[in-house]
Amino acid sequence: MRLDHTASGVYAIAATPFLPDGALDYSSVDRLTDFYLESGVSGLTILGIMGEAPKLEPEESIAIIKQVVGRADVPVVVGVSAPGFAAMRSLARKSMDMGAAGVMIAPPPALRTDDQIVTYYAQAVEAIGDDIPFVLQDYPLTLTVVMTPGVIQRIVNDNPSCVMLKHEDWPGLEKISKLRAWQTSGDLRPISILCGNGGLFLDFEMDRGADGAMTGYAFPDMLVDTVKLSQAGERDKAHDLFDAHLPLIRYEQQQGVGLGVRKYVLQKRGAIAHDTQRKPAPQLSAQAKLEVDYLLSRVARFDARAAI
Amino acid sequence: MRLDHTASGVYAIAATPFLPDGALDYSSVDRLTDFYLESGVSGLTILGIMGEAPKLEPEESIAIIKQVVGRADVPVVVGVSAPGFAAMRSLARKSMDMGAAGVMIAPPPALRTDDQIVTYYAQAVEAIGDDIPFVLQDYPLTLTVVMTPGVIQRIVNDNPSCVMLKHEDWPGLEKISKLRAWQTSGDLRPISILCGNGGLFLDFEMDRGADGAMTGYAFPDMLVDTVKLSQAGERDKAHDLFDAHLPLIRYEQQQGVGLGVRKYVLQKRGAIAHDTQRKPAPQLSAQAKLEVDYLLSRVARFDARAAI
Amino acid sequence: MRLDHTASGVYAIAATPFLPDGALDYSSVDRLTDFYLESGVSGLTILGIMGEAPKLEPEESIAIIKQVVGRADVPVVVGVSAPGFAAMRSLARKSMDMGAAGVMIAPPPALRTDDQIVTYYAQAVEAIGDDIPFVLQDYPLTLTVVMTPGVIQRIVNDNPSCVMLKHEDWPGLEKISKLRAWQTSGDLRPISILCGNGGLFLDFEMDRGADGAMTGYAFPDMLVDTVKLSQAGERDKAHDLFDAHLPLIRYEQQQGVGLGVRKYVLQKRGAIAHDTQRKPAPQLSAQAKLEVDYLLSRVARFDARAAI
Amino acid sequence: MRLDHTASGVYAIAATPFLPDGALDYSSVDRLTDFYLESGVSGLTILGIMGEAPKLEPEESIAIIKQVVGRADVPVVVGVSAPGFAAMRSLARKSMDMGAAGVMIAPPPALRTDDQIVTYYAQAVEAIGDDIPFVLQDYPLTLTVVMTPGVIQRIVNDNPSCVMLKHEDWPGLEKISKLRAWQTSGDLRPISILCGNGGLFLDFEMDRGADGAMTGYAFPDMLVDTVKLSQAGERDKAHDLFDAHLPLIRYEQQQGVGLGVRKYVLQKRGAIAHDTQRKPAPQLSAQAKLEVDYLLSRVARFDARAAI
Repeated sequence: MRLDHTASGVYAIAATPFLPDGALDYSSVDRLTDFYLESGVSGLTILGIMGEAPKLEPEESIAIIKQVVGRADVPVVVGVSAPGFAAMRSLARKSMDMGAAGVMIAPPPALRTDDQIVTYYAQAVEAIGDDIPFVLQDYPLTLTVVMTPGVIQRIVNDNPSCVMLKHEDWPGLEKISKLRAWQTSGDLRPISILCGNGGLFLDFEMDRGADGAMTGYAFPDMLVDTVKLSQAGERDKAHDLFDAHLPLIRYEQQQGVGLGVRKYVLQKRGAIAHDTQRKPAPQLSAQAKLEVDYLLSRVARFDARAAI
Repeated sequence: MRLDHTASGVYAIAATPFLPDGALDYSSVDRLTDFYLESGVSGLTILGIMGEAPKLEPEESIAIIKQVVGRADVPVVVGVSAPGFAAMRSLARKSMDMGAAGVMIAPPPALRTDDQIVTYYAQAVEAIGDDIPFVLQDYPLTLTVVMTPGVIQRIVNDNPSCVMLKHEDWPGLEKISKLRAWQTSGDLRPISILCGNGGLFLDFEMDRGADGAMTGYAFPDMLVDTVKLSQAGERDKAHDLFDAHLPLIRYEQQQGVGLGVRKYVLQKRGAIAHDTQRKPAPQLSAQAKLEVDYLLSRVARFDARAAI
Repeated sequence: MRLDHTASGVYAIAATPFLPDGALDYSSVDRLTDFYLESGVSGLTILGIMGEAPKLEPEESIAIIKQVVGRADVPVVVGVSAPGFAAMRSLARKSMDMGAAGVMIAPPPALRTDDQIVTYYAQAVEAIGDDIPFVLQDYPLTLTVVMTPGVIQRIVNDNPSCVMLKHEDWPGLEKISKLRAWQTSGDLRPISILCGNGGLFLDFEMDRGADGAMTGYAFPDMLVDTVKLSQAGERDKAHDLFDAHLPLIRYEQQQGVGLGVRKYVLQKRGAIAHDTQRKPAPQLSAQAKLEVDYLLSRVARFDARAAI
Repeated sequence: MRLDHTASGVYAIAATPFLPDGALDYSSVDRLTDFYLESGVSGLTILGIMGEAPKLEPEESIAIIKQVVGRADVPVVVGVSAPGFAAMRSLARKSMDMGAAGVMIAPPPALRTDDQIVTYYAQAVEAIGDDIPFVLQDYPLTLTVVMTPGVIQRIVNDNPSCVMLKHEDWPGLEKISKLRAWQTSGDLRPISILCGNGGLFLDFEMDRGADGAMTGYAFPDMLVDTVKLSQAGERDKAHDLFDAHLPLIRYEQQQGVGLGVRKYVLQKRGAIAHDTQRKPAPQLSAQAKLEVDYLLSRVARFDARAAI
């Protein structure tokens, strides 16, 4: 399975489960992988920002890739962003050797000008090899790198191995429309667009032409249904389902606290054994947990899956 | 009317209405002021970021203050943030002379350390005079200045004229809890806490002890009701009302596009004659307007006010 | 006198003199203007960052423009950077009416992409009018906006009223070479390039094709001589003179402290009555003053002007 | 040899030599180590920012540590800054096992508040173990983290294993004076202060009480002499020597280009075989090389070592 521009549906950004003492929880890695698959996802993304990748030792990253790729029968994308190209190349090639479908590359925060960004991706492709399909991550809120549609166009057209955009610009609806218009007019090579940002705008992103979501919201099954309803033209139903979850999506979206909320809900849903995060990580307060419980109870009035 | 720490309810961040050619729309200033008052707000804040203050000429700012203060029978807070203290002092003193209830001061983006922030506010108070009540604006997402609870504590305790916190840290729920705990234990002078961030977390901010909202969401009447329900202990009802609006609140919250959405809705509600923004400002696309219309139609199923 | 692309030599960035109580020192404004003229400068730039422009009230800015333009028989450039176009237009047009030769516009810190920067200058020209010659300020170290040579090319070619680049990118030598090469090949409209950065690289900037300096080093007479020697092909002599001053130039270049050093030396040279800065401003410590005195004594071994 | 607070003299920030094809040049690692030792340095620092550490694969880093520690008879400090504590701990413990004298830790760019910085170092010490002496790197210009003297005081007093400050704040002279005053008054535990910033302010930093330099200027022998002259009270001679090199120090200090200049000079001095940098890295233009040659010829008039 190699990633290509026809990818659609939901790619879950997988959390990395830890034991209470901070060690990797390999048993929960399996359980969580199964949970995602049962949720109907079309693919998995591991070792992203929300996978606490920078907190892992190199050998741990390799172990996780091996385990997830070995278990999942869907394409697995591996985050290989690194401060230098040597480490990026090494991780990318090992990932593909182990059976990954592609890799994801975020820009380093220091990039400012259009040319700097385009050059960076040219060098990254030169480093990892142009035979590895890659996902371009566009996430200015966290990465502070701003890519115009024109910059994305240059990167996609220059590098045939760029097959997907992880879209999480904010605001970003007009950007999707623009890229799709360029695709129609032949100015942009076809590309898959999956949306991140915790899913906060997924309802309208689908309306604008996105192919689905790549995010880690703790109800990937809901994301799958929303994408399907939207693709089936059931706009109102898609919004109804989405809106029922929005208060929780919004709560999970808080920078810094979000991953704690996500792991807490995944634990409640039985997908992982513990909600441990590796340091440094802000802890969820008792009151915050009560607030999440309250939100879950409210979602459950509309969506039984939240009755946990 | 002077602002003090007992302030509560909703302070609407007032938009600044322009004619299609970019000139100030003085007639709409009156109309909008009346609209806010009829919505039941407890106060008004003018010349904030969302009031396009930096795009106004000095004489225009003065004209708006005079007009709003003269018409409104609620406290009016004037944003006086400026690159230098000379202009800040000048605007603050003129505002109070015209009858403003207090001023609001945001930190300049270059501040980094705790001491830099504390020193800045000490100098600001020295500049404007310690007889002018002021609101401390804590908005790291836009201003890039991060204040710990301890820094806020130092500013409040050092400066008796600091009577209110405009709270829009993100995430910020624990910060409210912490400040309220310090207030209870006597470690913090009593202070009013009104929440911004477009209202995105107002439901839980009230639960945590906020006194209300200071934000510009185009349904201030809904904000007023949510705050009242919350203060009356009607938690479920507060969340029900809030959740019905959340899809639109979320849409309006997009950085850069938000003000366009807000003015578009205010115009549809008859509160201003035109949704013009002064340059530089991103325009709302036709599709974005259709999306807002759709959101309004969905809100209207629950809240008749949105049936416009 | 209108600024055009043939401008060369030294444009002194004028300090703004204050009395010990912080009031404007109008008498020193005259004295300082005369000092610059006697130093042989080709022009003056007022109300720049180092002129403490943001700390002035609008009326004070106008008074300074009037006084300097009225006294100086060289072109005067006025810094008109502002958070909004209304204030920029107002100050630019008033400046020209009073006899200024042109204006200088720095980009606001939020600009990131090439298109954002190009669009900003298009809007600025639309705002102030295309009949006012303007200087493009390229100063990433302080302003955090990074302009590629290509962006400068677009701005210059799109806007005939852009006649000068204030070049203070760092490192920036290759940028000068590139722009001059494009000018030779006809890809760039002719433009004057004056260098800032406190003069720290002036020796090599002249070698690369700069037309001179626009900076506020407290020995403008030395800058004038260095530029003349360089233009006369006396490379070694230019470097000898420059190197003698480099320890002091380097000391003055410290962000935050630099203006204090500059005003201290200007005062010692009799160009202003007091070295007062308006708040907020870090004070020069007693030890720092001794260090500057020591540096002056060392410069004086080579250049008698520093024997003060 | 374990690093402690009595460290003084010059610790050279070692470059990492590569072959023209980008592979590690192990032979030059030896040659460069010998070069530093013959220059009279008191210690070495490897895998810092200027050692292109982020561009190395984990195994390469280990190989370099082993080789340098095995060859050098002076204390070797290893840069172990990492996005996560797992990798930091792993590299730190392996370094000490191989015979390193201590490690250096730079703060991650996201830190803003005083408490965030202090907490980060507490967690770092918890991660690597409090038995490893470490150097606190204070380099706001590149790292964007601003530490007040008070924050440094808290980190030093809280963590006995913090034995050295790599001081490269800018401006930073008053900071050295303040820390030394606190040390005298007993408010700060004794600590070694070595200065970075490419040596740009070394002359005055010594006057303020620094113990020496930790930087990578291509003439470590000159740094050694300057520090010795200064420590011997030969102030004028120290400045004379320093000033002769200042034009080149200044040229080397350019962000982005500096390492290219440094490697070019090291190659000319025979300390490394090639001036190759790993990508991404800006190349030194032919004209820049001529400029460096010119600067060397001018330094050589005063200091024969530059006659190369």
